[in-house]
Amino acid sequence: MQKDNITIAPSIMCADLCNLEESVREIEREGLETLHIDIIDGSYSPSMPLGIETVKQLRKITDMNFDVHIMSTNNEYFIQEMLNIGVQQISFHEETSTHIDRFIQLIKKHDTKVGLALNPATPLTVLDYVLPQCDTVLLMLINPGFATDKNEKQVSYAVKKVEDLYRLIKEKGLETSIEVDGRVSLETIPSLVRAGADTLVAGSTSLFLPNESLAENKRVMEAAILEGLYKEVN
Amino acid sequence: MQKDNITIAPSIMCADLCNLEESVREIEREGLETLHIDIIDGSYSPSMPLGIETVKQLRKITDMNFDVHIMSTNNEYFIQEMLNIGVQQISFHEETSTHIDRFIQLIKKHDTKVGLALNPATPLTVLDYVLPQCDTVLLMLINPGFATDKNEKQVSYAVKKVEDLYRLIKEKGLETSIEVDGRVSLETIPSLVRAGADTLVAGSTSLFLPNESLAENKRVMEAAILEGLYKEVN
Amino acid sequence: MQKDNITIAPSIMCADLCNLEESVREIEREGLETLHIDIIDGSYSPSMPLGIETVKQLRKITDMNFDVHIMSTNNEYFIQEMLNIGVQQISFHEETSTHIDRFIQLIKKHDTKVGLALNPATPLTVLDYVLPQCDTVLLMLINPGFATDKNEKQVSYAVKKVEDLYRLIKEKGLETSIEVDGRVSLETIPSLVRAGADTLVAGSTSLFLPNESLAENKRVMEAAILEGLYKEVN
Amino acid sequence: MQKDNITIAPSIMCADLCNLEESVREIEREGLETLHIDIIDGSYSPSMPLGIETVKQLRKITDMNFDVHIMSTNNEYFIQEMLNIGVQQISFHEETSTHIDRFIQLIKKHDTKVGLALNPATPLTVLDYVLPQCDTVLLMLINPGFATDKNEKQVSYAVKKVEDLYRLIKEKGLETSIEVDGRVSLETIPSLVRAGADTLVAGSTSLFLPNESLAENKRVMEAAILEGLYKEVN
Amino acid sequence: MQKDNITIAPSIMCADLCNLEESVREIEREGLETLHIDIIDGSYSPSMPLGIETVKQLRKITDMNFDVHIMSTNNEYFIQEMLNIGVQQISFHEETSTHIDRFIQLIKKHDTKVGLALNPATPLTVLDYVLPQCDTVLLMLINPGFATDKNEKQVSYAVKKVEDLYRLIKEKGLETSIEVDGRVSLETIPSLVRAGADTLVAGSTSLFLPNESLAENKRVMEAAILEGLYKEVN
Amino acid sequence: MQKDNITIAPSIMCADLCNLEESVREIEREGLETLHIDIIDGSYSPSMPLGIETVKQLRKITDMNFDVHIMSTNNEYFIQEMLNIGVQQISFHEETSTHIDRFIQLIKKHDTKVGLALNPATPLTVLDYVLPQCDTVLLMLINPGFATDKNEKQVSYAVKKVEDLYRLIKEKGLETSIEVDGRVSLETIPSLVRAGADTLVAGSTSLFLPNESLAENKRVMEAAILEGLYKEVN
Repeated sequence: MQKDNITIAPSIMCADLCNLEESVREIEREGLETLHIDIIDGSYSPSMPLGIETVKQLRKITDMNFDVHIMSTNNEYFIQEMLNIGVQQISFHEETSTHIDRFIQLIKKHDTKVGLALNPATPLTVLDYVLPQCDTVLLMLINPGFATDKNEKQVSYAVKKVEDLYRLIKEKGLETSIEVDGRVSLETIPSLVRAGADTLVAGSTSLFLPNESLAENKRVMEAAILEGLYKEVN
Repeated sequence: MQKDNITIAPSIMCADLCNLEESVREIEREGLETLHIDIIDGSYSPSMPLGIETVKQLRKITDMNFDVHIMSTNNEYFIQEMLNIGVQQISFHEETSTHIDRFIQLIKKHDTKVGLALNPATPLTVLDYVLPQCDTVLLMLINPGFATDKNEKQVSYAVKKVEDLYRLIKEKGLETSIEVDGRVSLETIPSLVRAGADTLVAGSTSLFLPNESLAENKRVMEAAILEGLYKEVN
Repeated sequence: MQKDNITIAPSIMCADLCNLEESVREIEREGLETLHIDIIDGSYSPSMPLGIETVKQLRKITDMNFDVHIMSTNNEYFIQEMLNIGVQQISFHEETSTHIDRFIQLIKKHDTKVGLALNPATPLTVLDYVLPQCDTVLLMLINPGFATDKNEKQVSYAVKKVEDLYRLIKEKGLETSIEVDGRVSLETIPSLVRAGADTLVAGSTSLFLPNESLAENKRVMEAAILEGLYKEVN
Repeated sequence: MQKDNITIAPSIMCADLCNLEESVREIEREGLETLHIDIIDGSYSPSMPLGIETVKQLRKITDMNFDVHIMSTNNEYFIQEMLNIGVQQISFHEETSTHIDRFIQLIKKHDTKVGLALNPATPLTVLDYVLPQCDTVLLMLINPGFATDKNEKQVSYAVKKVEDLYRLIKEKGLETSIEVDGRVSLETIPSLVRAGADTLVAGSTSLFLPNESLAENKRVMEAAILEGLYKEVN
Repeated sequence: MQKDNITIAPSIMCADLCNLEESVREIEREGLETLHIDIIDGSYSPSMPLGIETVKQLRKITDMNFDVHIMSTNNEYFIQEMLNIGVQQISFHEETSTHIDRFIQLIKKHDTKVGLALNPATPLTVLDYVLPQCDTVLLMLINPGFATDKNEKQVSYAVKKVEDLYRLIKEKGLETSIEVDGRVSLETIPSLVRAGADTLVAGSTSLFLPNESLAENKRVMEAAILEGLYKEVN
Repeated sequence: MQKDNITIAPSIMCADLCNLEESVREIEREGLETLHIDIIDGSYSPSMPLGIETVKQLRKITDMNFDVHIMSTNNEYFIQEMLNIGVQQISFHEETSTHIDRFIQLIKKHDTKVGLALNPATPLTVLDYVLPQCDTVLLMLINPGFATDKNEKQVSYAVKKVEDLYRLIKEKGLETSIEVDGRVSLETIPSLVRAGADTLVAGSTSLFLPNESLAENKRVMEAAILEGLYKEVN
């Protein structure tokens, strides 16, 4: 039930924001190709980690794939800004969009991949007509923008939701990517990968675990992925 | 009609956002003590230069005075975040605040200086009762958040508004600081300083002029200030 | 298809608001243990029956279970206020919540029961992932906040929706309570109870019917419940 | 799988707005009985084609059926205005309505037909409880209010969505009308009619094709309808 | 510089909300004729003390003058509700009203007195054209709706603002009433009355001081008023 | 104290909206050169008389000066649409604009005249810094968008406000036009013109008085203007 290619997408929010160039170079040296960038403006959830100017300047120093996750009630503005900067994928939230199909077309018209992001409680029925239009479905496994509450746990139905989405994609004969975001930790990676997740947003509970190097964290993270891909559960 | 102490407040937005620590060190080396930080969230004007996480990490690496200018329709949230981080001054906009006195008290209660920011068109009558409560009045001399339009000029009534405010402050026997923001350039500094401005937000038309070092830009900027302070106009 | 325990939850809105203590004492004397409290602020529907101060003072004079139903577009504020006061259950509306899972966790963290309230037209698919997290699903059987229009009837699909929800709960092996609100009258109680409702919000068409005592109204209401529980429909 | 009666509903937006009376007379002469009127206020999508005063004056000069499609975040106001004017059918959007059942009742109480309008991406699960209350479901086949972008194409899942809705209606034994809106052109009409659509909003890609008379356009449009009704697809 | 008639307006919010009838009777027995009623809905400030149903039922048991103070961003709805109930005066906030003149006319058309309420920081220039239309100007002396913060003090410019308003009214030859609200305590009453205030909203720092009877509190409050009216300040 | 040139600006809203071309031709035949166009979207006041498509088509059939008055909370969108169509003057409301100076520059950059519109209650202090930037100040003399209430009278302070504005303009040595809108009738025209108004929005109480021809109404309207210009008041 698994896929062969798993993407690790380090969250730029967890890097050294006063020395971003250095952080990006270190990530590049580890052979990682995708950078996950959260664009939150405080209107959707109480958080505003990074600014647009920062993304603009980052764009100039690296060729990594920018995988942008917009959390805003003002999607059109931020989609347009990200298209102007030139990124590889843009995900926006279903819960804040009345013109979902329009945003999908807008992103695609610019030869950019499109993801639809879903809050934990959001049912998969919202995908009934647009799943085939999406390159990715991004499943939030914690409540978006409240990540700074270190005690918040991944929702108990995380694996079940990934499994349901994986089945849906297969039933429709699609190749849609499943991206998971929120406490994607060494403990949860095996079951998430086993359930069908293929893109892992990596933050403070995996790639950026303190007290270890990025290289070492990546090594154990890959081991967890392999466990999810190949080890049977009794 | 002039004051003795003029503060140059470099706008962090104009620094190298991928190498912020380095930029801050360079600013410190020039003996500058105040860092102007624009917190814009896209709700007040179409711009979101910097994130809160960036300010949080900046706080850990420097003791400079953080002079924060909030441009948002959600002032209470951002004021609270800035108080949590620990900054030296917070300015918020009159035009987006129904509880102006409350925000002033909230900031003061945390031993932080408070500024009231006014858009170009906003009349000074809005200061009738709160001027004595403010440490600073921040006058926007371009339309806030649209600074990226390089063709936008400083409003034609900039100097007159500074003069009016200066007179008002003197009439009331106050010591309120006048901060000016928006195309504060080598050309406009002498007349702004002569009119009574004492804090100059320094960006791409002064301290961060391209093709010259920060040190050299600071030198010519200080010359312009001196011209404003001491040279009579015929 | 029925449950043994049916809760009658008198709506405080229908009591004598100028003599609340007396009203509550009368309700207590009848052995009723739950008080249904509607918190409506005019933003979700044109109504604002009761204030927070009233609930605060009520809390001091009775140990009844407070079953709060929030109808607002500002759920987080009212949830927090109710948690501060100390109530036994809080229901909020799915239609006004983008962070449903977060509100559920917030309420549970305070050892308070949580209900998700649904408008008449809202499909049950919104429960796909959060039904197991809820203690109660509150089904509105009239349009919320428009109850003062005495001519408004219960929606025609009320019983069907209760049946569908009951089936869903049983299929998942859950014990979730089904609360019904809106024209829960002597005429509709038997079929609602037969369909699976176990908590009945009691207002002006049952427990507070004019011209009869609370005791007598309760007696005939219980008879209607028994009819729903034990009488077969031919 | 088809119905016998297909309604052509010319969109008034495509008529000569400086000579509306003349346009309406021409439409009447062609024997058309329904006028489709888009009420858009710029809040739901960036467009405001027609005003209420225009509709009021139109009402005085013709007895045609007014089939109003409201695209607004302020449904209650516009529904009330249209009821005051006296129209035959009002459709409003599910995506902007928290009180869907209430709006349906409000319209019905005035002996006016009611339609629920759905954006392209909106799943049919939103109809779970209210389909039997609706006279019409209006399926948007382009993104509403962005029609002026002449390059925007009908969504690729248009026919599938009509088929799904038709099946749903038949399964429930209902007679609900299926109205389709957006690039309903000579090319797409046959498949839309074959799928079950019975009301066709006719605009610039059918009845108002330039360079031909209304009469001639109607003739070819009817041919396309007949093709959809009676011609098998191999 | 003083007026002869000072009105004490007890705030119903400070009464016993579980025994309102009893509280009102006690107030009536003391010969007080005006009841100050705060209608706050949480949208203007975080507070919702009382509900509309409570006011409706209060109206049935007493003939006291209801002096309603609306704090909301939805003034038209609450004004209309209060007019339906039948109250003697309605004040609404300038800061949340774009159609100030319209609201004034709306209230007057129903033979109800009208007050314009101003936040502490709001300048008196907003009265330039509507002062003659108002029966009352209500000056908030603390930030509205944050009264529960027991440490919040009256604004330092309270007396000055009352004096300025009094002068303005006299200059225009008007008889407008000046109502003051917020920490109107035994300590502040003399100076407020001396400055020109003639209606005192009486709450927890005057008429409802704990540990004393309403009668005794009224007696000392009247003494403070007399001090303001007749005692010279050296 | 008067100006020589008075402009009559017929309000298109009062024309025959089903035969606009004919109406415009009749207006042109009377030698009138300016057409007043109200763009209201229901967000600022409950009214939406005309649509943008109608203005677009009108533009194609006449060279009259289009004098657009936007009443919306979404000024930037409507300003941009009007600039695209090509109109001669755009007025927007101060009360709904946080970026007043920006909108003024935006309009001027397109070689279009700019007006700032003020509600009846709005003080003239809002003009302190932007009066010199405006070609016109549009004074609303009834509450905007409520004109359909035929009983609503012009505000009692109409003439005083025109006088105050006229004095302000003269004091600053400016040539700003004063446009008056709302019940500009045969009775009120003389005093408004005498006070300094030079542009009269003409509607149902002047140019479009029923039972008389446009030509005759224009004749008596001009007589009223002459009375205002040349007749002394005793």
